[in-house]
Amino acid sequence: MFRGTGMDEFAGCFCCGPRPGFPYAAIDAAASSSLSSPTNIEAMAEAGRPRVSSTSGGPVIDCHGHYTTEPPEFLDWRKRQIAAIGDASQAPSIDSFQVSDDRLRDSVEGAQLKLQRERGTALTLFSPRASGMSHHIGDAGVSTAWSRLSNDLIHRMTRLYPENFVGVCQLPQSPGVEPKNCIDELSRCVNELGFVGCNLNPDPTGGYWTDPPLTDRWWYPLYEKMVELDVPAMVHVSAAANRNFHTTGSHYINGDTTAFMQFLMSDLFTDFPTLRFVIPHGGGAIPYHWGRYRGIAQDQKLPLLSELLLKNVFFDTCVYHQAGIDLLTQVIPAENILFASEMVGAVKGIDPESGFNFDDTRRYIDASVTLTPDQKRAIFSDNVQRVYPRLRAKLSS
Amino acid sequence: MFRGTGMDEFAGCFCCGPRPGFPYAAIDAAASSSLSSPTNIEAMAEAGRPRVSSTSGGPVIDCHGHYTTEPPEFLDWRKRQIAAIGDASQAPSIDSFQVSDDRLRDSVEGAQLKLQRERGTALTLFSPRASGMSHHIGDAGVSTAWSRLSNDLIHRMTRLYPENFVGVCQLPQSPGVEPKNCIDELSRCVNELGFVGCNLNPDPTGGYWTDPPLTDRWWYPLYEKMVELDVPAMVHVSAAANRNFHTTGSHYINGDTTAFMQFLMSDLFTDFPTLRFVIPHGGGAIPYHWGRYRGIAQDQKLPLLSELLLKNVFFDTCVYHQAGIDLLTQVIPAENILFASEMVGAVKGIDPESGFNFDDTRRYIDASVTLTPDQKRAIFSDNVQRVYPRLRAKLSS
Repeated sequence: MFRGTGMDEFAGCFCCGPRPGFPYAAIDAAASSSLSSPTNIEAMAEAGRPRVSSTSGGPVIDCHGHYTTEPPEFLDWRKRQIAAIGDASQAPSIDSFQVSDDRLRDSVEGAQLKLQRERGTALTLFSPRASGMSHHIGDAGVSTAWSRLSNDLIHRMTRLYPENFVGVCQLPQSPGVEPKNCIDELSRCVNELGFVGCNLNPDPTGGYWTDPPLTDRWWYPLYEKMVELDVPAMVHVSAAANRNFHTTGSHYINGDTTAFMQFLMSDLFTDFPTLRFVIPHGGGAIPYHWGRYRGIAQDQKLPLLSELLLKNVFFDTCVYHQAGIDLLTQVIPAENILFASEMVGAVKGIDPESGFNFDDTRRYIDASVTLTPDQKRAIFSDNVQRVYPRLRAKLSS
Repeated sequence: MFRGTGMDEFAGCFCCGPRPGFPYAAIDAAASSSLSSPTNIEAMAEAGRPRVSSTSGGPVIDCHGHYTTEPPEFLDWRKRQIAAIGDASQAPSIDSFQVSDDRLRDSVEGAQLKLQRERGTALTLFSPRASGMSHHIGDAGVSTAWSRLSNDLIHRMTRLYPENFVGVCQLPQSPGVEPKNCIDELSRCVNELGFVGCNLNPDPTGGYWTDPPLTDRWWYPLYEKMVELDVPAMVHVSAAANRNFHTTGSHYINGDTTAFMQFLMSDLFTDFPTLRFVIPHGGGAIPYHWGRYRGIAQDQKLPLLSELLLKNVFFDTCVYHQAGIDLLTQVIPAENILFASEMVGAVKGIDPESGFNFDDTRRYIDASVTLTPDQKRAIFSDNVQRVYPRLRAKLSS
């Protein structure tokens, strides 16, 4: 028997993927979970405890934060959009979405901003809720409108809090639709809204994996634009529409592992020497199996992974225990690791073993006994500015 | 551009899975890679080096070995079977497969048996090549004949080498076909051939994941038989038919991660308190993200993972570097870890960083500075006999 959550209820046929029905549950779950006193807020009672001092110096920049506390008006708009699938005349216009700045402030003041202050994070690369992208819902038109609205909302947050948030955009991907369809929205977000990167979904189907791998020429026009704009992508799947997968527990991690292995077996970075990807959630399973990947590459007569991939592929620190972070920092060069917490994200509670929030990942880096102060500074601050040059430009201006 | 191998060439339509065409490449690749001086054999030149002494005592039992050096006659039979898909009158009979005992001995003497001797492994739970199961090829009839032949071959190996090999069977799974269809073959292998467990594929489609999750009642009749026979299953996917996945690099690891998360979100072990699963490849991504899984369970108001799952779920040690094994043994209780190497398997070369084969996993356990001698003995010998009681009975008889 399956103990599902709204976010991962099965809603697909056995062949061709999702059906309407799922999205409502997902949205309902999202609305109820994010807007009614998030668990993490309750957990903030631990804020008074002394934290381990950082020896790194420099600002701490979180490269992976999602707007997971959206106001209900926003989720209502999405509900109406989904309800209108199949009858475009009923679809809400982007302009029909209205919410006050005060409502937006309320949505983050007690959440992301409070956590930033408590944890000593200077700023967050902020993008729409990852599971909310749900590229499998509706067609490319639905995805385009939803992405535009989501990115506009992020843009408002970056204007309300320019010291705290820098924008990263959702792309209007859709199953079976060529990624070049995303170029206009990427350009708009970077050139007009000041965003510094994008989230790229390697499986817009939500767990059926029927689009081409990230290394197929299918994706090349989008990569050309990323290179031209000099923005990286975080590889990030969205909600699982396939009931075999739990969104944050397996689908996210599998997406990370899958993307890395696609890169390993490809010539992608020969074709695009400056293309850059961040693999979130600590790189999925990759660092844990680093010997396996080094060995597979060697069996294939490929160069060392450091030469083959590590000029183009980076890992974030969304690994929620000290042992995991210690492994990550032991096997992956520090210059390839970017600090991140994914907060307010996948895990909200306090770890009874440590007494602190699982997703308070700064503590694990601070507590590392093998990283040097220079390496910690690289992970907290320098690397992200190198990988996201438009962020560096913002910070320098 | 994708640098594929025969084993993971794309051969599926974008909707409904594999087409003929793929299997030939897979078989060709398997035949050529396994039968022409495997790399690992060449790597055996390192055998003379002194190895770290085991402080564990007791026999070292490898719970995860595949027959990956099958004789060409066997692979030829499979080619003929695949060629006859769609024209059953051309299908080869099981009885038409003929190979001498000498040919079988030749296939393992210089490979698995030599490695056992060199590495000090007493015996191996031996099953058919995992990628060779390829349940996505053909229908249930094809899978049944192929499984029967594959299991019969394993049975011959266990009779030729009763001190070295104990059988674990392949199941005749097929996409969309109820798992109860596997009961007869499981019973035959256990009751007639003396096998002690089975390999269970959580995704018979080869990467499209369109069958129900392992926690669905779809699987319950098979679980009832497993419980009755008191045999565990190793959760093990087969070859990837979906070009998004690399068979050993991502599909295997994703299968492991997915299965654990299905178990976590289910009441399966309430319904089957004595059902047991081994998750191979070090548990996929699970131990690396142990904090994430503890946190997700806590957010869901579930019991501690130790209570929820660890009476029923076990992890093997197929993790090919010291840092990975150290993490595994740090976060997972020693009583839940079973020694395994997956040899001759996914990675065949020598790690230039250690000077030893990547898959010589005994060295990592031996070298652990945190495991006690009792814990090492549990991992090498005791646990596997507890999880596979029919193995214990064999060793006691």
